[in-house]
Amino acid sequence: MDKNNIDKIIERLNLKFRNIEGERLILAITCDENKNVLMTAFMNEEALKKTLETGYMHYYSTSRKKLWKKGEESGNTQKLIRFYRDCDGDALLFIVEQKGVACHEGYYSCFHYKIEDEELKVTEEHYKR
Amino acid sequence: MDKNNIDKIIERLNLKFRNIEGERLILAITCDENKNVLMTAFMNEEALKKTLETGYMHYYSTSRKKLWKKGEESGNTQKLIRFYRDCDGDALLFIVEQKGVACHEGYYSCFHYKIEDEELKVTEEHYKR
Repeated sequence: MDKNNIDKIIERLNLKFRNIEGERLILAITCDENKNVLMTAFMNEEALKKTLETGYMHYYSTSRKKLWKKGEESGNTQKLIRFYRDCDGDALLFIVEQKGVACHEGYYSCFHYKIEDEELKVTEEHYKR
Repeated sequence: MDKNNIDKIIERLNLKFRNIEGERLILAITCDENKNVLMTAFMNEEALKKTLETGYMHYYSTSRKKLWKKGEESGNTQKLIRFYRDCDGDALLFIVEQKGVACHEGYYSCFHYKIEDEELKVTEEHYKR
């Protein structure tokens, strides 16, 4: 996507950046085409711009205090298909084509810990690829 | 759920509360049984406890600086079915039975603004009840 269009989109989005860990960030929720929630992470404006510019998901790491491209090291990239904004503008829902797995622990989704009988159980029962 | 079990669950969850708008909060992503993402909001520990205690979703409002029960005024409550934790422990994914609509703007999901041709278009095409 070209730079002028990206600036226009970001203006139209009218995002409500939150003060998160001392940075101005929004929430990104990332799903696949089968509606599986793959992960959630934060984005600053630069991460959103990079995502729209390249067509691949970029996030902002609050611990490393920098932009990162999802899958840059693992190869498990996320190709952007389309995205939605929520009503109050502090969150975006991205639909992506996930290469490999989303979770750095090797699971398809980061949400693989189910709470059952007061225990955390690793399960991927919720996810249908 | 009884108080002892709730304390045990919260201990096991080992949550990583984030500094969000000056409060210690986690992210809640709320979906229905058909995997529609209905909304996202914040939770403090009290909101999570209330949710587990009552079986109905409670969140924390950063603008009003207080706990709120989803649907308390509108009647559009969310009955908790089950929930998942993500790998780094700063987010929970709740599967709920949504009464009526989730969005205060009258839409089923808060994520009803689609970005298309540099415009925000209201659509519920993504959501299948």
